[in-house]
Amino acid sequence: MKAFASDNYSGVDPDLLEALIEANQEHEPAYGGDSYTKKAIEVLQKTFGNNAAVYFVFNGTAANVLSLQAVTQSYNAIICADSSHVVTQEVGAAASLIGCTFLTAPHQQGKITPEMIENTYLKGSAFGRHSNKPSIVSIAQTTEYGTVYTIEELKAISAMCKKYGLLLQMDGARLSNAVVALKTSLKAVTVDVGVDILTFGATKNGAMFGEAIIFFNPELAQGFEYIQKQSLQLSSKMRFLSAQFIPYIEKNIWQRNASHANAMCQKLAESLSENPEIKIVYPVESNQIFAIFPQEIIEKTQEIFPYLVWDSSINLVRLITGFDTKLEEIEQFANLLSF
Amino acid sequence: MKAFASDNYSGVDPDLLEALIEANQEHEPAYGGDSYTKKAIEVLQKTFGNNAAVYFVFNGTAANVLSLQAVTQSYNAIICADSSHVVTQEVGAAASLIGCTFLTAPHQQGKITPEMIENTYLKGSAFGRHSNKPSIVSIAQTTEYGTVYTIEELKAISAMCKKYGLLLQMDGARLSNAVVALKTSLKAVTVDVGVDILTFGATKNGAMFGEAIIFFNPELAQGFEYIQKQSLQLSSKMRFLSAQFIPYIEKNIWQRNASHANAMCQKLAESLSENPEIKIVYPVESNQIFAIFPQEIIEKTQEIFPYLVWDSSINLVRLITGFDTKLEEIEQFANLLSF
Amino acid sequence: MKAFASDNYSGVDPDLLEALIEANQEHEPAYGGDSYTKKAIEVLQKTFGNNAAVYFVFNGTAANVLSLQAVTQSYNAIICADSSHVVTQEVGAAASLIGCTFLTAPHQQGKITPEMIENTYLKGSAFGRHSNKPSIVSIAQTTEYGTVYTIEELKAISAMCKKYGLLLQMDGARLSNAVVALKTSLKAVTVDVGVDILTFGATKNGAMFGEAIIFFNPELAQGFEYIQKQSLQLSSKMRFLSAQFIPYIEKNIWQRNASHANAMCQKLAESLSENPEIKIVYPVESNQIFAIFPQEIIEKTQEIFPYLVWDSSINLVRLITGFDTKLEEIEQFANLLSF
Amino acid sequence: MKAFASDNYSGVDPDLLEALIEANQEHEPAYGGDSYTKKAIEVLQKTFGNNAAVYFVFNGTAANVLSLQAVTQSYNAIICADSSHVVTQEVGAAASLIGCTFLTAPHQQGKITPEMIENTYLKGSAFGRHSNKPSIVSIAQTTEYGTVYTIEELKAISAMCKKYGLLLQMDGARLSNAVVALKTSLKAVTVDVGVDILTFGATKNGAMFGEAIIFFNPELAQGFEYIQKQSLQLSSKMRFLSAQFIPYIEKNIWQRNASHANAMCQKLAESLSENPEIKIVYPVESNQIFAIFPQEIIEKTQEIFPYLVWDSSINLVRLITGFDTKLEEIEQFANLLSF
Repeated sequence: MKAFASDNYSGVDPDLLEALIEANQEHEPAYGGDSYTKKAIEVLQKTFGNNAAVYFVFNGTAANVLSLQAVTQSYNAIICADSSHVVTQEVGAAASLIGCTFLTAPHQQGKITPEMIENTYLKGSAFGRHSNKPSIVSIAQTTEYGTVYTIEELKAISAMCKKYGLLLQMDGARLSNAVVALKTSLKAVTVDVGVDILTFGATKNGAMFGEAIIFFNPELAQGFEYIQKQSLQLSSKMRFLSAQFIPYIEKNIWQRNASHANAMCQKLAESLSENPEIKIVYPVESNQIFAIFPQEIIEKTQEIFPYLVWDSSINLVRLITGFDTKLEEIEQFANLLSF
Repeated sequence: MKAFASDNYSGVDPDLLEALIEANQEHEPAYGGDSYTKKAIEVLQKTFGNNAAVYFVFNGTAANVLSLQAVTQSYNAIICADSSHVVTQEVGAAASLIGCTFLTAPHQQGKITPEMIENTYLKGSAFGRHSNKPSIVSIAQTTEYGTVYTIEELKAISAMCKKYGLLLQMDGARLSNAVVALKTSLKAVTVDVGVDILTFGATKNGAMFGEAIIFFNPELAQGFEYIQKQSLQLSSKMRFLSAQFIPYIEKNIWQRNASHANAMCQKLAESLSENPEIKIVYPVESNQIFAIFPQEIIEKTQEIFPYLVWDSSINLVRLITGFDTKLEEIEQFANLLSF
Repeated sequence: MKAFASDNYSGVDPDLLEALIEANQEHEPAYGGDSYTKKAIEVLQKTFGNNAAVYFVFNGTAANVLSLQAVTQSYNAIICADSSHVVTQEVGAAASLIGCTFLTAPHQQGKITPEMIENTYLKGSAFGRHSNKPSIVSIAQTTEYGTVYTIEELKAISAMCKKYGLLLQMDGARLSNAVVALKTSLKAVTVDVGVDILTFGATKNGAMFGEAIIFFNPELAQGFEYIQKQSLQLSSKMRFLSAQFIPYIEKNIWQRNASHANAMCQKLAESLSENPEIKIVYPVESNQIFAIFPQEIIEKTQEIFPYLVWDSSINLVRLITGFDTKLEEIEQFANLLSF
Repeated sequence: MKAFASDNYSGVDPDLLEALIEANQEHEPAYGGDSYTKKAIEVLQKTFGNNAAVYFVFNGTAANVLSLQAVTQSYNAIICADSSHVVTQEVGAAASLIGCTFLTAPHQQGKITPEMIENTYLKGSAFGRHSNKPSIVSIAQTTEYGTVYTIEELKAISAMCKKYGLLLQMDGARLSNAVVALKTSLKAVTVDVGVDILTFGATKNGAMFGEAIIFFNPELAQGFEYIQKQSLQLSSKMRFLSAQFIPYIEKNIWQRNASHANAMCQKLAESLSENPEIKIVYPVESNQIFAIFPQEIIEKTQEIFPYLVWDSSINLVRLITGFDTKLEEIEQFANLLSF
């Protein structure tokens, strides 16, 4: 089967699998004391800044939850767009494990704006001790709808956060796709624009499993070694999690795979655009397309090339390309559409 | 490096790695909807009973926490030995995530007895609504000190649980080693003796990562699909977690690896026994040895063959053998001891 | 000082204070084992049904949290209006202590409708195990904006809950005011329309402190005696909490006080209506008025008769009358307005 | 009924009830903004130091939980005696709400010693990130068994806490009885010996309800105004809670009542001592007696003068005197014993 259902329907990038196989040597200290984890941390520090505190966790939900948990008390509120994955797609894990609340603003093409942050902050603070105290903003890059914050947008958000003493966390499950789209560097859209805490995804971009949590100010990571273990994210054979990040960065696999996925997505968008009955609802800026499909198109395509019907009440579908999407698959899908 | 530090200092068993590599085919539904997970569940149901509800999680701490979380309210108490891994080695994760309390009894060679369960239950219930209500007993097989409950001991514990309406959970991070030691089957020491919920470990016995949670009564798993996601244990590329369990069971790798580790441990114990200054403190029944070492022996061996000093105040050390321990390593270690 | 700031700016109704003083006799068993608590439970069972399981807690936030906690797991979602007190005014206590999530729908004059419940349920369930599972609807009677659900509206909500297997909880912090407004009985707007769990307020209607939690199906209260203690709501000298409920019901103080407060509120609303610059924004149906005041009116009245500026960005103010509001206070306030 | 069951079987001290009645004047701001609360805070600051941050909560369990919650993360451990009320009698509320763990040491006559703290700390820290990180010590004054820490014992405990960077919390539910027993001042056994956070009880010593939480270093109270609300302890009509503390301190009611209770307890202990079949098991230093009673004495006395059978397996009973215990009650009880 090949699908446009999600970038985690894919398997493992061969180069990353090779890294896993090569890491299967002899004994290594457990729980992150191994040489691969040390190396992976160094590689990420080289990318994001030597000061960065780097940790590896199993999956994206965990990366979001633990990165927020480290800096959030139960009486705090996290401000984000109402479309945020951390709110809608994770069984409320962050709020549940931290005990805090999310204050959401209606997204604009998946994004939150500085003005929305300000309004949400002011409204959320209006009743003082009777409401949760906003302390951090969470944004996703790329967004839940595949759009990409520009550097300018990020700087404006960061400035608004600073104005109100709010931290800025970035859900980077698909950060590579955003960086490629912006033709810039990993550092330029994260630490350089004022992001405080980043989750840096690998699973959706070719890894078997594993995400990195990066605190650009290491003081924010106080106690994190305990949090990681208590929140079920300390892999005993950590090397197999971290080893993937070495080639991911050193061999620019993050870039190669994201570039490919984005390019395939543009091709797919072009095919869809040729069909006047299909309406693409958000700008296609990375590797995701959200579109309204006629019912008959859904019926004749979804089983052959599975994808997600995001909102069945309006036939809103989501198509995702990945590092392993092939041009002929796009063409086959286009052929299905044109009949 | 080779070590006796832990069975998670090891890498991956080649046969299980092969299963991972083979699972790297095309697209598969994410989050456990894949064919490998379906097959792995069937294989485990064949082993433990067709009724069993089977889930795969990332690591042993998660397996313990989630298996208990599914059946425990915040006002409940879990009865276990004071040496239990779930109490001493997991940053209190189960109590923290569930909100419940552990009532511990002083272990006897790592074990809890029916009498201790009864006493703990009665004492813990004496103040009624002012104390946590005991609802479940947690035992580890093998125990934290490498000892193994006999079938008779397990039946007696199970009978005591039934007497007081308590569920019985088994932490089987090293269940394979226990089953091999008892020369019996996986089923005979679990569902057949009245265990209600099992965590079945693979990581310490050759897997890259991954443990199974098995509810022998599927009603106990109500809501578990949400719990798994919310508690950060729903792997998006689940197939790489579950695929290992197929050969693990079908090719009896669980048995082969545990048999080897146990045998190596007996060899190591024999070597230690020849040194009159070394005192083995618990019966060596599986793949772990706890012993008092003279300080000079620690000094001349620990760096060469790393192992854990469990309690530095009394020079209590722990040595563990694994699926990849080699006879010559035992001999090299014995040579170090004899000088 | 007299104020329209809140019905908890008031002191204690003299008859209820008398009950407290009379309860100060000799020794009584602690933690609810006393004769006053037994009597208060009986009195409430007589009112709401003999089957009802009745508990007394300290305050309204606790009543909301514990009544929901008893029937909600961490992976559940609670559906309510976005204006709900339990969401906006309690530092997210319910979500924090239960670990669950609230799914909110935009209120209509403080109310949620069956259609909104259905839509929220369907949208919230669309992603299955990846989102919190809706299990209960929470409504407030009177609503946060002082409006009152009619019997018909309540029946329609209850029917929708049953359609989707959802429980129905009612935040009755100001239930008395609603019942008086509807000219009906306490039972008619609660158990008779299908409410499953009620919080029945007394503090805002004359009590010193104390609210009742009433489970109309006692099976829903399983384990509640532990929850009450663990969640910090088991008063050791419980009699002083419960004793107030005896005359509250037997002497119809709930009715007398609410009738007075509602009547005063109508008078106040009439006064406001005479001022063309004042705009009352919700129907005045109980003891609360929400209105837009000109800035100059706020300036000349708020210090003399304190009230809450609910939303300073639009000069939305809230005025509340209570059991102790005097007609001359309304007149004095009216005089202030007319200058 | 009169009983030796608990000091919360009592009603309200007439002087404190008078304070409640007098506070029932006009309107006062809700949620602690009232003049009584301001005055009560001042009175307590005068007693304990002007720097102290003072909050009022409903009951003793809440006082313990919230005072610990303010300074404890989920990955921390709290060190205390295994007999501590906070561990054994509160459905694990503190651990449940904070998510942390208690590390207990076997009590010595209800007390923990500096050596036990050190041992528990070292043992609890031995496995680093795999165990909860000890951060605070909790002691009760008087202890759960009615014994009283001397000033020297407290100083030694405080010094040990400082050695390991641990905070020191004191559960002062019966602090007044301890201070009276030591013939010293409230300040001398708390802030002066290095206690960081105190719960100062009133309910068991004559109040209707209410305990104070006092942070001697106000920085420790950061965010507490939110915690108090979220943890269900912000009384809306706070004045009735705080008003009792004004005469409690200003009129030395804390001292008068505790002195009386202690004196009655000595009388009761003398009576018991005359019976050679009765064995008092802990030093009688405040208002509690723990004793082994012959079964026949339990049978002929417990119904007439109810008291708690603490451990029915050994006939260990607890008798408590209170502010309202009368000499003739002691004599009546003595008469019962002598037949």
